[in-house]
Amino acid sequence: MQNPSGATQLLISLKSANFANPIYLVNPKYAGKDFMGYTFYDSVASIKDDVPIDLAIIGVPALKTPSLVEEIGKKGIPFVHMFTSGFSELGKQGKKLEENLIEIATKYGVRILGPNCMGIHNPDSNLTFIMPMQTVMDTINRDDIRGRDIIDNQDGLDLDELSDLLSTEKLINKGKVSFISQSGGIAFTHGMISQGLGYSFSKMVLLGNQIDLDLLDFLRYFGDDPETKIISMYIENLKRDGNKFVQLLKEITLKKPIIIWKGGQLQAGHQAVMSHTGGLAGDYRMWKSMAKQTGVILVDSFIELTDMIQSCLVYSPPKTLGTAVISNSGGTAVESTDIIERNGLKMPLLSQEVTNKINQFIPEVNSNLKNPLEFGGKANLEQTINIIKMLAEEPQFSSIIMTASPEFIIFRGGVSIDDYVNEFANAIPPDSGKLLLCITSSMTMFEQGVKMNIEFRSKSLPNGFVAYRSTEAAAKCCYRLWEYGQYLEKHR
Amino acid sequence: MQNPSGATQLLISLKSANFANPIYLVNPKYAGKDFMGYTFYDSVASIKDDVPIDLAIIGVPALKTPSLVEEIGKKGIPFVHMFTSGFSELGKQGKKLEENLIEIATKYGVRILGPNCMGIHNPDSNLTFIMPMQTVMDTINRDDIRGRDIIDNQDGLDLDELSDLLSTEKLINKGKVSFISQSGGIAFTHGMISQGLGYSFSKMVLLGNQIDLDLLDFLRYFGDDPETKIISMYIENLKRDGNKFVQLLKEITLKKPIIIWKGGQLQAGHQAVMSHTGGLAGDYRMWKSMAKQTGVILVDSFIELTDMIQSCLVYSPPKTLGTAVISNSGGTAVESTDIIERNGLKMPLLSQEVTNKINQFIPEVNSNLKNPLEFGGKANLEQTINIIKMLAEEPQFSSIIMTASPEFIIFRGGVSIDDYVNEFANAIPPDSGKLLLCITSSMTMFEQGVKMNIEFRSKSLPNGFVAYRSTEAAAKCCYRLWEYGQYLEKHR
Repeated sequence: MQNPSGATQLLISLKSANFANPIYLVNPKYAGKDFMGYTFYDSVASIKDDVPIDLAIIGVPALKTPSLVEEIGKKGIPFVHMFTSGFSELGKQGKKLEENLIEIATKYGVRILGPNCMGIHNPDSNLTFIMPMQTVMDTINRDDIRGRDIIDNQDGLDLDELSDLLSTEKLINKGKVSFISQSGGIAFTHGMISQGLGYSFSKMVLLGNQIDLDLLDFLRYFGDDPETKIISMYIENLKRDGNKFVQLLKEITLKKPIIIWKGGQLQAGHQAVMSHTGGLAGDYRMWKSMAKQTGVILVDSFIELTDMIQSCLVYSPPKTLGTAVISNSGGTAVESTDIIERNGLKMPLLSQEVTNKINQFIPEVNSNLKNPLEFGGKANLEQTINIIKMLAEEPQFSSIIMTASPEFIIFRGGVSIDDYVNEFANAIPPDSGKLLLCITSSMTMFEQGVKMNIEFRSKSLPNGFVAYRSTEAAAKCCYRLWEYGQYLEKHR
Repeated sequence: MQNPSGATQLLISLKSANFANPIYLVNPKYAGKDFMGYTFYDSVASIKDDVPIDLAIIGVPALKTPSLVEEIGKKGIPFVHMFTSGFSELGKQGKKLEENLIEIATKYGVRILGPNCMGIHNPDSNLTFIMPMQTVMDTINRDDIRGRDIIDNQDGLDLDELSDLLSTEKLINKGKVSFISQSGGIAFTHGMISQGLGYSFSKMVLLGNQIDLDLLDFLRYFGDDPETKIISMYIENLKRDGNKFVQLLKEITLKKPIIIWKGGQLQAGHQAVMSHTGGLAGDYRMWKSMAKQTGVILVDSFIELTDMIQSCLVYSPPKTLGTAVISNSGGTAVESTDIIERNGLKMPLLSQEVTNKINQFIPEVNSNLKNPLEFGGKANLEQTINIIKMLAEEPQFSSIIMTASPEFIIFRGGVSIDDYVNEFANAIPPDSGKLLLCITSSMTMFEQGVKMNIEFRSKSLPNGFVAYRSTEAAAKCCYRLWEYGQYLEKHR
């Protein structure tokens, strides 16, 4: 094992996910030794398997991989996930090694994922590289279950304790999002953070250097997969078949949204991509025009990717750019308005009729009843919900952005988070086609506020709305959804 | 009291700040009644004062203010803070009322702050509208110490308990930042959030409708104030004297940084401003060109304002745009690079000499030793600090941005937050003129990660570096500091 830390972490993930099928560890150096409930084999050939083996995971140094793939081919294992790095991302010699691998794999009919990648997350078979958050928190601080030390110094390791630890939590749920990634770190973080944001994955796959199985294979698969409602990607470079890629995107976006975050957009980014996954990053302008042609939703950072996934999970595209904004202080109202307009949305005024209606219970002094709406803290939850209902009936608005922080209303009004979430979730009839977006960001420097925000956020998505981290995030997502809607209208 | 909730909160703030001088409450409706340890007077004239009164705070309805200012003038009180709203921000009639007030004030030599504002925060005299965060958290959930209910239904109020509650914490510290604001909500939030971010105020002032004392008065004062190291502002509109304003900015920016956040930048924002503080917002392009001419640092949102204040507190402007970036995964390295370049910084490569040096303890496989630097989690804290020291000696870098999250290094390496902060704070000699910026944002969806981030962030500033919420925030601040440095070089 060249990188025992990574391979051991993968094993920890499998254990914590209660992976039910047999696992065989192979390492001649530790042959016969026990580790985490398994015994090391001397070689692939020596595994006494009762059932056929589906997948081999390789973590040996790059130079040793060709002979190992030969062994695997002879054993009749159809798929290899190559964890090992040190191939084309390091230059010419690595490139040659890759060609060598492909030759051997072709000979035996073995398909390769990677090299230089973390593999697959599939809740159906509990095959995964991520972990329940609690397990990470429990294990990550412990020296005894990490890295080379575990194998070299088994005396220090209490296997029973470890097993207890790993089985305390079940794997995170199966969801509707698929994620294709060229970065293991980002896929791992995505798998972790999504648990806090309230969404789960149907599948995740890491591409690595794509010497065999590549982006197009998985894109095609997820396009046809009925369990995948949203396809999301972190892509640094396209290995081959640009035209086929564009064609495939065009077909799939008509069925389900595809969200792409393209890494390596500018000059230094190209260097970073070359060093990371050994490919050319390509001109970002080309990606932008490709997105326009294909209906792909392009985002610019990891956090924007998570914002957009949440948006696609609960909202349909708004019909127009018209947005009503509810705020909780005059300054915040002005700020939200600037941010919302800067990101392409429009803010038409309320009808005089609705302004008059609101004026019956909110005095005009220290308020703004036009758009943005702002009541100087004078509206309670019931009144706020009433106002939202009135706004949803105004034809000039397709979306309503609630920038008044939930802490503010909850603290002031003495309602519980559950009450707030519940009222908010039911404020707009689902068949109205209107979007209700919520911002929850203020006071996030303090533990109480942060806790409330975390709880509120994790409850929002299952209740049909997104609690965005910022007004900018909400505005960007709303605009990008509108763009996708426009594309669909034109091409469907 | 037209808005007892606001006025009562102000009183709570004064009590919690241990305001030591006498306070007299005036309201004929409650004359003779006790409230929070004070007795209501029937009129201003009836106050039996042993010492001259410095300041009157007015919260009566707008129409009653002229006669009250007359009373105050006769009593010889030199300053009035008018909490009351409902003046020019509501139209013509309110505008007339303002003119009336100025007439009376001029007659008696009374100076007016506001109307339509929350007043002053001055730790020197414990005159304040903000509260220690803990007090807010303790009080904000309680029905018995808020709003109209307190006064109308005194039976329910346990004054002793209230006093205990308010005296549990001292007022937040006095600091080096002054803040001029046209929004009470934003000033209050700023006063609260700064406590979590680790900075404090020398003074804060709310401008309101600026019928008498205005932006220029306070700008001039803070420009000369030796206790103000940084001037920050939230401004919606300039009431008068544009040329004088520009002249004053030019003079002051040579002595101390001025950070301006201009609210109401686009079309709907103008409407929001008119409704909020009753003035015209003005063309934002004019503000941008004004900032260029005067060396003002312009920011675009509240959170950018807090980022920039922190930056100015600990960093001098970088001499060049050259930035080295340290990351903790290949994907994050690519992302950071995109974000940093998009925001104007440059990322020259490391010298071969330093790359070789690092290569002695970090293998090149699965790493990037060019720029961005990324070690696939292989560098411990000591090695990371060593690398930072080497980068600081490279002439092509004026700043180093550490995007590797502290959780990552702390969790993995088993070091404490204090150790990390300490090592990090001393990594670069202070006289080198180089900036070391840190990002702490990952895992912020989870309580453990959030807690660690809050603690880390609050410890960073007192230790001489900023822990930014995002790579974008760090890059923007670094670029804006560089711009300010360029301005100073040209004009000093």
